[in-house]
Amino acid sequence: MLNVAIIGATGYTGLELARLLAAHPQVKLTALTSESQAGKVYSQVFPAFQGRLDVTLEKLDPAKLASRSELVFLCLPHHQAMEAAKAFRAQGIKVIDLSADFRLKDAAVYEEWYGPHVAKEILKEAVYGLPELHRERIRSADMIANPGCYPTSCVLGLAPLIREKLIDLDTITCDSKSGASGAGRTPKTDILFSEVNESFKAYGVGKHRHTPEIEQELSELAGKKVVISFTPHLVPMDRGILSTIYAKAKAKLDGKSLHQIYLNHYAKEPFVRVRPLGSFPATHEVQLTNYCDLGVHYDERTNRVIVVSVIDNLTKGASGQAVQNMNLRMGYPESTGLESTAALP
Amino acid sequence: MLNVAIIGATGYTGLELARLLAAHPQVKLTALTSESQAGKVYSQVFPAFQGRLDVTLEKLDPAKLASRSELVFLCLPHHQAMEAAKAFRAQGIKVIDLSADFRLKDAAVYEEWYGPHVAKEILKEAVYGLPELHRERIRSADMIANPGCYPTSCVLGLAPLIREKLIDLDTITCDSKSGASGAGRTPKTDILFSEVNESFKAYGVGKHRHTPEIEQELSELAGKKVVISFTPHLVPMDRGILSTIYAKAKAKLDGKSLHQIYLNHYAKEPFVRVRPLGSFPATHEVQLTNYCDLGVHYDERTNRVIVVSVIDNLTKGASGQAVQNMNLRMGYPESTGLESTAALP
Amino acid sequence: MLNVAIIGATGYTGLELARLLAAHPQVKLTALTSESQAGKVYSQVFPAFQGRLDVTLEKLDPAKLASRSELVFLCLPHHQAMEAAKAFRAQGIKVIDLSADFRLKDAAVYEEWYGPHVAKEILKEAVYGLPELHRERIRSADMIANPGCYPTSCVLGLAPLIREKLIDLDTITCDSKSGASGAGRTPKTDILFSEVNESFKAYGVGKHRHTPEIEQELSELAGKKVVISFTPHLVPMDRGILSTIYAKAKAKLDGKSLHQIYLNHYAKEPFVRVRPLGSFPATHEVQLTNYCDLGVHYDERTNRVIVVSVIDNLTKGASGQAVQNMNLRMGYPESTGLESTAALP
Amino acid sequence: MLNVAIIGATGYTGLELARLLAAHPQVKLTALTSESQAGKVYSQVFPAFQGRLDVTLEKLDPAKLASRSELVFLCLPHHQAMEAAKAFRAQGIKVIDLSADFRLKDAAVYEEWYGPHVAKEILKEAVYGLPELHRERIRSADMIANPGCYPTSCVLGLAPLIREKLIDLDTITCDSKSGASGAGRTPKTDILFSEVNESFKAYGVGKHRHTPEIEQELSELAGKKVVISFTPHLVPMDRGILSTIYAKAKAKLDGKSLHQIYLNHYAKEPFVRVRPLGSFPATHEVQLTNYCDLGVHYDERTNRVIVVSVIDNLTKGASGQAVQNMNLRMGYPESTGLESTAALP
Repeated sequence: MLNVAIIGATGYTGLELARLLAAHPQVKLTALTSESQAGKVYSQVFPAFQGRLDVTLEKLDPAKLASRSELVFLCLPHHQAMEAAKAFRAQGIKVIDLSADFRLKDAAVYEEWYGPHVAKEILKEAVYGLPELHRERIRSADMIANPGCYPTSCVLGLAPLIREKLIDLDTITCDSKSGASGAGRTPKTDILFSEVNESFKAYGVGKHRHTPEIEQELSELAGKKVVISFTPHLVPMDRGILSTIYAKAKAKLDGKSLHQIYLNHYAKEPFVRVRPLGSFPATHEVQLTNYCDLGVHYDERTNRVIVVSVIDNLTKGASGQAVQNMNLRMGYPESTGLESTAALP
Repeated sequence: MLNVAIIGATGYTGLELARLLAAHPQVKLTALTSESQAGKVYSQVFPAFQGRLDVTLEKLDPAKLASRSELVFLCLPHHQAMEAAKAFRAQGIKVIDLSADFRLKDAAVYEEWYGPHVAKEILKEAVYGLPELHRERIRSADMIANPGCYPTSCVLGLAPLIREKLIDLDTITCDSKSGASGAGRTPKTDILFSEVNESFKAYGVGKHRHTPEIEQELSELAGKKVVISFTPHLVPMDRGILSTIYAKAKAKLDGKSLHQIYLNHYAKEPFVRVRPLGSFPATHEVQLTNYCDLGVHYDERTNRVIVVSVIDNLTKGASGQAVQNMNLRMGYPESTGLESTAALP
Repeated sequence: MLNVAIIGATGYTGLELARLLAAHPQVKLTALTSESQAGKVYSQVFPAFQGRLDVTLEKLDPAKLASRSELVFLCLPHHQAMEAAKAFRAQGIKVIDLSADFRLKDAAVYEEWYGPHVAKEILKEAVYGLPELHRERIRSADMIANPGCYPTSCVLGLAPLIREKLIDLDTITCDSKSGASGAGRTPKTDILFSEVNESFKAYGVGKHRHTPEIEQELSELAGKKVVISFTPHLVPMDRGILSTIYAKAKAKLDGKSLHQIYLNHYAKEPFVRVRPLGSFPATHEVQLTNYCDLGVHYDERTNRVIVVSVIDNLTKGASGQAVQNMNLRMGYPESTGLESTAALP
Repeated sequence: MLNVAIIGATGYTGLELARLLAAHPQVKLTALTSESQAGKVYSQVFPAFQGRLDVTLEKLDPAKLASRSELVFLCLPHHQAMEAAKAFRAQGIKVIDLSADFRLKDAAVYEEWYGPHVAKEILKEAVYGLPELHRERIRSADMIANPGCYPTSCVLGLAPLIREKLIDLDTITCDSKSGASGAGRTPKTDILFSEVNESFKAYGVGKHRHTPEIEQELSELAGKKVVISFTPHLVPMDRGILSTIYAKAKAKLDGKSLHQIYLNHYAKEPFVRVRPLGSFPATHEVQLTNYCDLGVHYDERTNRVIVVSVIDNLTKGASGQAVQNMNLRMGYPESTGLESTAALP
């Protein structure tokens, strides 16, 4: 059994990790931290865990935790995560970080979008934990930067188009829609129930921080700089991201061949499913699962490719993918603890 | 007082008309029809109208209704609407049709997307009832084709860009999201609560029937054929459409000038509001109102314009706009009966 | 025109008052206050009001406001409201208070449930503003305590039973369910979207502060002390309260007579509607209206009466009733500004 | 491996069984039936099952299925279920029926509430599958009547009170609230998204068919006839039932002792959790799990006991409990395949 700690266990990604790891056959949860709830029993704070995870929350103390953990998941706000990563890596603990702190390889880009980076040495060893792109590197990484939710959905939707050089790279638009759990669990007026419910809005238009992350991965795939339009939106539901992706085809295509390219591309992936031609995924079909489901369409009238990509933002978009990364790193079967099917309804 | 009938009063657009017209100071509702509920009192079927509209529903009989109505609103499925329009127009009754039957000026285009058209003579006299584009024609039209909900949001969002020739016409993408009331009130599995709730999906990818309607209006504005990408999505909420519109700028712009163009363009419109620069509208801000609210952004990185356009699909997107058209046609102040402010929450 | 101020205009009851009063033909809104947003334009904070209410928010300064207001609505937390009421009443301004501070006539009971009361002289002149019970007193009251949302639904549901002495007074159970807007707009974790959505819970079991308020009004109706069970619940929706009320009949009844008693009782009330026998109201049927709709049933098997009572918690349960009280006090027709019909959906 | 068939696999209880059984280590799903979708692959109808359950749906043919199934789950409407049960039992197949057809032991009572019963011989061998009450009988039953959702929540909430003779039996009120999935997947106007969403209502007031079922089980526990008030309500959410239960205490109690009685009563139950004193469960805390969570309160003011009982209506209220019954019948550990923790959010 692997001794594992969840650092920041009372936010939504921490909760999702707790749920997944409590059922993971290879993992022993040895510590859960929370600065605000330390001293309370986890199942007292979250009664859903009564009888499942009756452990006492503690404050983050890397030195103390090091003796009890071989691997830690960081579910902290950015900036805080890099401090924690530094402390854990200094003691040789494997780190999977769910914040943005180690996703952008170029510290200058990070600093432009997020502010000062104080752990640049660790940034160097960090591997971007998107298994479908970097599986081999992840297997040996001790510092894994777990991808953002929007980037996961967009990059998986676009990868085949870019690898196969099918589209004009300067025509990419990612119009993404996310459930409200993506906004986190810190109380703010704009995520109150009565503010989010029965409304739909765009936010961060032209300036969302996931833009450079998507562009980094697409640029690596393309072998040259890619710039995209990315607009996130807030959907009045708990979980799920759907990205509708548009790009101009370099040359005339046909829908069937395009579909076959996607089928081939992801044929061996355990967590990417391509829908039959003419069928497009809905977010509830991947809810609480680690799947990314894709639907593809070639529009003859406009010579554009349209890709619909869905994930659960807390599972494949965060904690599920983090478990997938842990499985790869530790040599467990990649799907361990991630075999669930979406409930309907 | 104007004698008015609602043909098809038990669907969502009929209900919204009943609500608006029951409070309209110039209108007397002389008849409400329903094939399935004829004989029942309206407020028995919809208790919200108890004490407000206790009239008996009747079957559609144009000859009988003609003596009691000067103007009728058709809230019928397409094809049925054209038959009814024919009958009412033959008797000199003014018609505002909320179906798609008279929106496409070219009968051949209609037939390609919807099937046979059997009232082509009437199609010729029909005016597309988008007041912001065709106000003067509406003032004298006896046959008004009330616009579709998606086209209203997209065309109002794009009109300034096209009129001012600011964008490449072959780069337009309209990514639209609608609440579930747009799917109507006829029972089908895919619009059951537990199918729609907590999910988000695209539908009609590359083939939704509002595409030619949007293109018709944009083409008229541009003076040449415009072809667009249009993808509608279903949001788990009752009301509201938000369209995120992308297009490549012909030349470098700046955000402030772009914003000023929108302010100028819609300065005199009673129902189009442009948000301050940097602010984007949410659907709940126009809920139950006849407003179309717009936010505009120029993205330097990609040289694209992004417009966010919101309406209430049942009000400005259907029945409210129909009342606005009636007001114009009858010479009432344009906002009569449409003065409400959105409730929050 | 009546000069009116809303004290605390950025919470949900303040917003609902702003919406209703902006359309009220007898009212001029001369001031809106907010401690946190003072200096900003109201429509900048709430874009729904763009073009409707573009006034600047100011800090509460009773001396300054007195010269501009004949009547003020207090939309403040309890304790704060009594301080403001004192200041306004000292200057002869009429006050309608939407907090709990002047609802309980017995200061000792208030202090048991809410803490110290520092405006006991004003408490003496306060009239409980439930028009269906205290209409005549309201017509001449300068200090009106606007009822709580739960009490409005429960007391209107029970009044005929108690007045007609039909039930055993020690068998009353009020099981009430409210939308989330009742919890207010101050950010707290437990009212975040993802905490409320897709869940249902009871709260304040056995100790909710509306209990003594309901009991006060029922006791006055009964002419003796009434003690009830009252359990509130949180429904994942914005607006609406439904109370299911149970009580044992003193003697055998029959459903038809019981129904007739309710019809007679409320025959002249503009805002109470009794449903046909066998029909029970849903909250959406009174949404955004000032109605209280009632359904009644006599259960032979158990010899119990069951009443279902629905209101919109922000309208009849708060701001709409406050406007109704203002109308009564100022001698306007009671329904002025409150004529809307619920939208469906 | 046990060969199992799901009869009626495209409704919500069938889907939930498919989800649970696809992950059950002892079960092989050998057949899924659907009259309307026969011939299609399950994962084509429900893409969530792509890669998980790619089997072809077939029409119900008991003779044909008998050779492939040792145990069948009936997810059929009542009346249809009894016909199928007859056919399967005639061939010696074990049956777990999720309809109401075999829950009421007295055929006369069944016929009063549901209509003619045509399988009375089988009714005699049927065991009511509520493990917490009838575990031993279930272990050897070949015909198990899986309890209704509301009865499960009410009976588990009341059992300790009745067994310990703590309450007046003629004072019981069960006020229950259910998510919309309980209404099934057959298209009807009143369960469309825009009819259910943002509303709350009571239904079946005084006449819901689960009343006699609850009374049967309570009467058996009490050793004499119990009559209750039961009112179900519809909550705008997918899953979950919360029952608020009121009863008068026979004698003065105290909260702590009452709580201890519940703790003792359910100490060994794997799927009933009693909350700490003063804490009450919310439905999301048991979502997608087989738990029934209980909170109890003694109200001194009224001498009443209040119990809050929550379950997931499709899991413990239907398919999860059916799997629990199968586990008991087959001798598997009772929690096999039912170990999940609720996701938050």
